[in-house]
Amino acid sequence: MDTLQEKQEKKLIKNPKIPQDKIKICVLGGVGEVGRNLSFIEYKNQILVFDCGLRFPEEDMPGVDFIIPNVDYLEKNRKKILGVFITHAHYDHIGAIPYIVEKIGNPTIYTSPLTKAIILKRQEDFPHQKKLDIETIDTKNLKSIQLGHFRVNPYLVNHNVPDTLGFATDTPVGTVFYMPDFKVDFSPIIDSPINLNHISYLASKNPLVLMMDSTGAEETGHSISEKGIYEDLEKIFEKASGRIIVATFASLISRLQQIIWLSEKFNRRVVIDGYSMKSNVEIARAMNYLKINKNTLISPQEAQGLLARQLTILCTGSQGEDNAVLMRIANREHKYFRVEKGDTVIFSSSVVPGNERAVQNLKDSFFRQGARVFHYKMMDIHAGGHAQQEELKLMISLIRPKFLIPIHGQFSMLQAHADIAEQLGMPKSNIVLTSNGQIIEATRNAITLTNYEVPANYVMVDGLGVGDIGEVVLRDRNQLSKDGMLVVVVVIDGENGEIRGEPEISSRGFVYLKESQKLMSETKNIVKDIIKKTVSKDHTTNWAYVKDNLRDKVGEFLFKETQRRPMILPFVVEI
Amino acid sequence: MDTLQEKQEKKLIKNPKIPQDKIKICVLGGVGEVGRNLSFIEYKNQILVFDCGLRFPEEDMPGVDFIIPNVDYLEKNRKKILGVFITHAHYDHIGAIPYIVEKIGNPTIYTSPLTKAIILKRQEDFPHQKKLDIETIDTKNLKSIQLGHFRVNPYLVNHNVPDTLGFATDTPVGTVFYMPDFKVDFSPIIDSPINLNHISYLASKNPLVLMMDSTGAEETGHSISEKGIYEDLEKIFEKASGRIIVATFASLISRLQQIIWLSEKFNRRVVIDGYSMKSNVEIARAMNYLKINKNTLISPQEAQGLLARQLTILCTGSQGEDNAVLMRIANREHKYFRVEKGDTVIFSSSVVPGNERAVQNLKDSFFRQGARVFHYKMMDIHAGGHAQQEELKLMISLIRPKFLIPIHGQFSMLQAHADIAEQLGMPKSNIVLTSNGQIIEATRNAITLTNYEVPANYVMVDGLGVGDIGEVVLRDRNQLSKDGMLVVVVVIDGENGEIRGEPEISSRGFVYLKESQKLMSETKNIVKDIIKKTVSKDHTTNWAYVKDNLRDKVGEFLFKETQRRPMILPFVVEI
Repeated sequence: MDTLQEKQEKKLIKNPKIPQDKIKICVLGGVGEVGRNLSFIEYKNQILVFDCGLRFPEEDMPGVDFIIPNVDYLEKNRKKILGVFITHAHYDHIGAIPYIVEKIGNPTIYTSPLTKAIILKRQEDFPHQKKLDIETIDTKNLKSIQLGHFRVNPYLVNHNVPDTLGFATDTPVGTVFYMPDFKVDFSPIIDSPINLNHISYLASKNPLVLMMDSTGAEETGHSISEKGIYEDLEKIFEKASGRIIVATFASLISRLQQIIWLSEKFNRRVVIDGYSMKSNVEIARAMNYLKINKNTLISPQEAQGLLARQLTILCTGSQGEDNAVLMRIANREHKYFRVEKGDTVIFSSSVVPGNERAVQNLKDSFFRQGARVFHYKMMDIHAGGHAQQEELKLMISLIRPKFLIPIHGQFSMLQAHADIAEQLGMPKSNIVLTSNGQIIEATRNAITLTNYEVPANYVMVDGLGVGDIGEVVLRDRNQLSKDGMLVVVVVIDGENGEIRGEPEISSRGFVYLKESQKLMSETKNIVKDIIKKTVSKDHTTNWAYVKDNLRDKVGEFLFKETQRRPMILPFVVEI
Repeated sequence: MDTLQEKQEKKLIKNPKIPQDKIKICVLGGVGEVGRNLSFIEYKNQILVFDCGLRFPEEDMPGVDFIIPNVDYLEKNRKKILGVFITHAHYDHIGAIPYIVEKIGNPTIYTSPLTKAIILKRQEDFPHQKKLDIETIDTKNLKSIQLGHFRVNPYLVNHNVPDTLGFATDTPVGTVFYMPDFKVDFSPIIDSPINLNHISYLASKNPLVLMMDSTGAEETGHSISEKGIYEDLEKIFEKASGRIIVATFASLISRLQQIIWLSEKFNRRVVIDGYSMKSNVEIARAMNYLKINKNTLISPQEAQGLLARQLTILCTGSQGEDNAVLMRIANREHKYFRVEKGDTVIFSSSVVPGNERAVQNLKDSFFRQGARVFHYKMMDIHAGGHAQQEELKLMISLIRPKFLIPIHGQFSMLQAHADIAEQLGMPKSNIVLTSNGQIIEATRNAITLTNYEVPANYVMVDGLGVGDIGEVVLRDRNQLSKDGMLVVVVVIDGENGEIRGEPEISSRGFVYLKESQKLMSETKNIVKDIIKKTVSKDHTTNWAYVKDNLRDKVGEFLFKETQRRPMILPFVVEI
């Protein structure tokens, strides 16, 4: 009566001396945070990598462009890497490729056609890098990929960009599902409804581990269908009498298609504005993922001849970014477009945490200029790209994995995801709440969160520097931003230990200098006093002591006078 | 058949030569923003001021403590001010008193007993100021206050702090209602349900203008009653087996009462932790606004002897503030308390925009330590202090003002508020969407948003400085925070125009100096080169030109090498 699997398991349990077959699983980025997704699985010296994303910095990381995962472990073990599997074309899944793939030995990347095209487009910004080795996964004719001990089975899921994949990897221990950003959409646009039968088939052999997206795990019910989003948007288009300006992420290809179709339906021409959006539209259109009538798209110049009600502007800047198209229109700094009374502005993407205030100010600016503004709070036109509680339940029930590793999301989301699995009857010990870098070991019978950790700290990218911004630099930036700084330059005559000329003082970000003459002249007197007391005439001066004194005493004085603590930089030059 | 009022109006219209009686109304802070509330009304050289609040800074104002209204106009006209009326004890309504009241001639402040006590407590931090002149409004026996042409009628409303007032001011033109933060609560705790009959009576004479809170105008339905909040919290208390930690604003006196009553019901002792919360509890308890059993409150030291399930910790830090009690508990840095598996953490206040990420990280930290975390998204335990759409409709219908000025809130909220009034049949021309500082004029027949503006810009408070932080300082702080700075010091021999010694270079927040030796030595060479080319030997050197060159050339070089733009500060000292 036992299945083959059950017989094998019994054999293993009966004979504990046979070392149980083990697979290592590790999430390097994406748990306890949103973005920077990268995971790997390892079996007998063979490694597969999944996704390679970036995330945006926190408020206390000023100047940092973005954060990528630490891949020291993969770099050291690059000989073992058999391939990198990329699920879809969003930056939290592909954004770190230019910084990481060469470092880990330029392994072959496996992904869908659209994702490949968008990766290659981005790669043009990094001309000095080795050519990427990308194998296309034919999404119309999905085939398994055998790499060493692994057999990777790609399957299609729904999201808000077409060609989004999940991967079910058969390993000698069992099948590991890697299932990041997805939704179950029975009425998607562009792509087909998720093929539940295919996923069920892949799970029929030995479904061991499910690594699944937790971003929507705190939201009850089912995510909104792309068709539903289309219908919500249609209601706005129906009522709009002036220009329609839609701001969204350039990567939400489904949203771009919805807006274009609606514009065509309501006899509007469409201007695409914003570099990343233009290039994504070009790529997706050339590959036939975006269907656009011949005369729909026009340039901003051509649009000048149209009536307001004949025009849709599709642009970037939905997060309130400083230099994006939407901000320029709001500030009346755009070369071609102004907002006028009766226009409609649609924010069609959710707000990334940290941008709430910038977005609110931008909306206010449009309201003041007489536009109608729609956003996700007023109507369900948000991204809606992540499975919510009912979809997660569906997937857990369909795949029936032995073990669950909630991935992707703040810890509160991972916990909510774990709670859902428990409600469905999964034993608590079969659910692993992991941290970035912590090694998980799974056998057929048990899953263990080991104490073994590989480096998984933030690697910050700032301009050309990757990983050269550390704690010290960030701490300095934060201090500088709060109370600014003050530089004191004193030239000392080496012969007699006396000041040559006057101390020079300059500050930035501290007080407005022209209005603080008195404060500055008092500071100079304190500097002179310290020099007199700490510099000796006989070449025995302890210069570090002099500098410390300048820093401390001047700092104390300024704090007493202003209750601010600028950074003090003393320069003592001996001549 | 005409009422007296209608007869008067007809007379005015028939005889246009009689100058129509006018009242000036101006909001100095609180429209197009949240916080910094201050309004005034002026009639024939007599002024009444309403509220005197502060707001918290935007992300692009690093180091700024808070922002207060510009009161230049009131300062110039301080002889005309007859009184300042304060509605309730929250900082967005009282916080600017120490910075403003002395400046505008120390006019008498009229407010309720609890608000008075909290204002006076805060004033202890400003010992050098003139004693405030505060008249108590007896909230148990409300009486009108006659000041010049004005007759001010205070009335009680519900909010989440007891003793919250609104003011209906009879003027020769008609009655002006000033109705900020309020809710209609038929089952409040501590205070009594809002007295709709009293408001109706005050509106029965000549209800001209209603200035009303818009904070909740985008939310449908009715705000949750304080009793409802109590019941939600009770469900959490019932299930909690370990410690309960509740973080909220110190000023939400109703919330503090709810937590204390629930703790008493469930046999828990309560530790109040956080300076502002302790002092508010003391004040409110002494005045009998907070009812606390004799043995309920204990010190953190005494709490050490209790079981986890016998303890509630009521503390500050619900916004993820760095040094608040909650953060110290989360970071295991609190002197007395740790979170353990099975404990319950409740965030019982809404999240101030801009703090979302800090709050999420804090929650994650508690989740990781095994606590259950509740917040407003999971259960309706948020502040709930502001009237929502149905309550606004009720007030407009009850007061039936001729004119509406939506106040308090982002522009999108003001617009939503205006939409509600229009839905109720108020003509669009009777609704004024104003900006801070813009003068509104109302006669019995018409309301006009004039083009006349008084100064209403942000006044920033940073340490002891009030208003001395301007655009330049903030711009510098923002630049410093992004890419840091680099100081170059060169000493020039005045005799021959040559460099004495080596140029000195130091940077902060730019690169990690120890790892950038090569970059620094190349920078020194560039400095030497510039000095050679720009400093002449014959005392004709243009030093500004030398400095500009250093700034530009060094900046260009560093940008090319790093793609970063640190602020360059050159010091050229001639000896």
